[in-house]
Amino acid sequence: MPQPPVQPLKALDLARRIERGEMSPADVVELCAAALAANEERIGAFASLDLAGARARAAAAPERLAATPLRGLPVGIKDIFDTADLPTSHGSPIHAENRPGADAALVSMVKRAGGLVLGKTVTTPFAFLDPAGTRNPHHPEHTPGGSSSGSAAAVAAGMVPIAIGTQTGGSVVRPGAFCGVAAYKPSFRVLPTVGVKTFSWSLDTPGLFAAGVADVAYAAAALTGRDLRVDGDAPAAPRIGLARTHVWPEASPAMQTAVERTARAAAAAGATLREVTLPPVLEEAFRAHAIVQDYEAYRALAYEYDHHREKLGPNLRQLLDDAATLHADDYDQACRIAERARHALATLMEEVDVLLTPSAPGAAPRGLATTGQSTFNRLWTLMGTPCINVPGLIDESGLPLGVQVVGRFGRDRAALEAALFVERVIASGRAASGA
Amino acid sequence: MPQPPVQPLKALDLARRIERGEMSPADVVELCAAALAANEERIGAFASLDLAGARARAAAAPERLAATPLRGLPVGIKDIFDTADLPTSHGSPIHAENRPGADAALVSMVKRAGGLVLGKTVTTPFAFLDPAGTRNPHHPEHTPGGSSSGSAAAVAAGMVPIAIGTQTGGSVVRPGAFCGVAAYKPSFRVLPTVGVKTFSWSLDTPGLFAAGVADVAYAAAALTGRDLRVDGDAPAAPRIGLARTHVWPEASPAMQTAVERTARAAAAAGATLREVTLPPVLEEAFRAHAIVQDYEAYRALAYEYDHHREKLGPNLRQLLDDAATLHADDYDQACRIAERARHALATLMEEVDVLLTPSAPGAAPRGLATTGQSTFNRLWTLMGTPCINVPGLIDESGLPLGVQVVGRFGRDRAALEAALFVERVIASGRAASGA
Repeated sequence: MPQPPVQPLKALDLARRIERGEMSPADVVELCAAALAANEERIGAFASLDLAGARARAAAAPERLAATPLRGLPVGIKDIFDTADLPTSHGSPIHAENRPGADAALVSMVKRAGGLVLGKTVTTPFAFLDPAGTRNPHHPEHTPGGSSSGSAAAVAAGMVPIAIGTQTGGSVVRPGAFCGVAAYKPSFRVLPTVGVKTFSWSLDTPGLFAAGVADVAYAAAALTGRDLRVDGDAPAAPRIGLARTHVWPEASPAMQTAVERTARAAAAAGATLREVTLPPVLEEAFRAHAIVQDYEAYRALAYEYDHHREKLGPNLRQLLDDAATLHADDYDQACRIAERARHALATLMEEVDVLLTPSAPGAAPRGLATTGQSTFNRLWTLMGTPCINVPGLIDESGLPLGVQVVGRFGRDRAALEAALFVERVIASGRAASGA
Repeated sequence: MPQPPVQPLKALDLARRIERGEMSPADVVELCAAALAANEERIGAFASLDLAGARARAAAAPERLAATPLRGLPVGIKDIFDTADLPTSHGSPIHAENRPGADAALVSMVKRAGGLVLGKTVTTPFAFLDPAGTRNPHHPEHTPGGSSSGSAAAVAAGMVPIAIGTQTGGSVVRPGAFCGVAAYKPSFRVLPTVGVKTFSWSLDTPGLFAAGVADVAYAAAALTGRDLRVDGDAPAAPRIGLARTHVWPEASPAMQTAVERTARAAAAAGATLREVTLPPVLEEAFRAHAIVQDYEAYRALAYEYDHHREKLGPNLRQLLDDAATLHADDYDQACRIAERARHALATLMEEVDVLLTPSAPGAAPRGLATTGQSTFNRLWTLMGTPCINVPGLIDESGLPLGVQVVGRFGRDRAALEAALFVERVIASGRAASGA
């Protein structure tokens, strides 16, 4: 089935136009409204919408909004974030009637920064692997990825310039890659999880989606007040470690080629490139991720499992059935491995600014029965390091292929700058051609 | 005003009697009911009660309950934990109507372990310093401490054998000390905060109250499945570091004497005692605590601050007013100091099993206008180490004086065993006499 072309809204460009008085926040809301009218029925990115509210807030105080860090830009919020004025179902029928008494911290931060909450984006149930029905804007027979399915798809389809998701395995970087938009999972602790439905308290990490790397960096800076923008001077050429990792064979040939060509093109553009072999404790940590996640999920979702097991998705039900037998000693051991791996990774990364890896095994799989795999993401979630999906590559079938830039813990600005460098290399066409 | 004598219910003793068939869970509920009838009007430990529900659950399946880890014992839950079948106001009029859609993870763990939730205990608003009206069971003109005021008072007054609280500064150890019961703040990560109203996501730590150290260890073991019980063999003599720390001058003369005599008495009973001087980074970390706490609270409580500032308590309002100016760089710096301090503390504690310090500056202050200070607690909360208030000492006016045992991160059983050793030394009378 042929698709209408989809085009993300560029947050940074819109913000500048508002800043210069060339557009108003209300104009941007209407751009979103037009994309929603054209695409939402086909894609299904939103769990609930508040277009009328966004229009009203944009109209009420345009000058005040235009002076805020987010300049009145509309924002989509994954439906596991509490919102006091919109339902918050966590993607599950168990909580279909849930109306929280307060906004999640990050929702408040969006409002404090002058963002307009346009709606809640579709999440897979409890942000796990059971799919939720959202379609990939680039091809409706393909998954948009998960669990932040709606946030990635909404940005890709131009329905909203900024969206918020969360990642426990690969739920920010993967859907960003599948939908062809920039996705940024910050260092652990940069964006708060307060008021977010917990799956794993050690792993759950909020993240951001926007058209490109500079857009997502702008949004992060506006939300946090941190020095994260990368749209000033041209990005410095980074020291890149090409990290194939032990799961490299699980990447498709197209993905392997994409990462290798991107690395070579970055080197040709001035980056320092070296092959990096991860120490063995990182492979142990890769396996420890599941233990940490599952042990915590069995407790975090105890109420739902104990009272509504039959209403859980089959993947989540199976995970929790199995997790019941995990012992605290296994968990403690997994946490200790993670801690050792963080130290080993920090040592390794004294010699490179970022690692370059696949964002996912390949392009978005065909079908809506799966949201894909977090194989190339979960280690970094456990490490708490910044990760950015860099968009711009497409595979032979026309679907987006994402490459991932992994930064050092707490060095998010350097990671974003390196991601911008890689994004420009890709945009120049050198990565695609293998030059 | 003379007080009726109060006597905590001993969880471990009750559990054993139920195990042996000498008592039923329903019998214990009636002990709680009698104490509630005698003391609750005077003390005000509960925000809501479900005595009928506890009676019904105790009566419905006595054999099944008696075979569970918690053996059907009643438990009080601080009112910042979500409960699906009881209101959860967080101690604030802002959330007076709040009825969560799920139980907090730890509430589910209580139920899974066979505990009966008897009610929600009074918390100071959002678990901060503004007092909530609960009175000290040992003297109604004195504070019970905070923020877990109701949990500590309810256990001290025999209304419930086990109660759950949380600590961000000193909100478990301090009220335990003021009310003369054992209070255990586990290592960070042992008890989940999922479904607990967040004040500071880096600091908030659930903890437990019970009559004595063996009781609180039993409750922790039953809840977590961890090897934490200390009621088997006699506790080994620990290596104790007497840690006066830089805030030692803020302890009352009575408290200083109590800690020093306890240390000497422990040594006389076989413990290895050494004076410990904390490295300077620990003093930096003491100061960093406020920055971490306040920066996070300004985000965690953003909804309440932005929409209901006038309904906040004056202490909390002031904190959030001031916290608005904290920058992410200050916060990052504080987090890095904390991390360095954790490593320095771990190194220091390779040579001792536990540190011995005051639990609070002295006994419970007179008056209900303050809940006391967390001076002797907040460093350890930031360090994430296990802390136990050891009860048994009383000052000249008859109020409890608590000494604190601080263990190594993740070595909770050793910390509890050392606390039991100290508790027995105190009970022997040697600590009081200075022998």
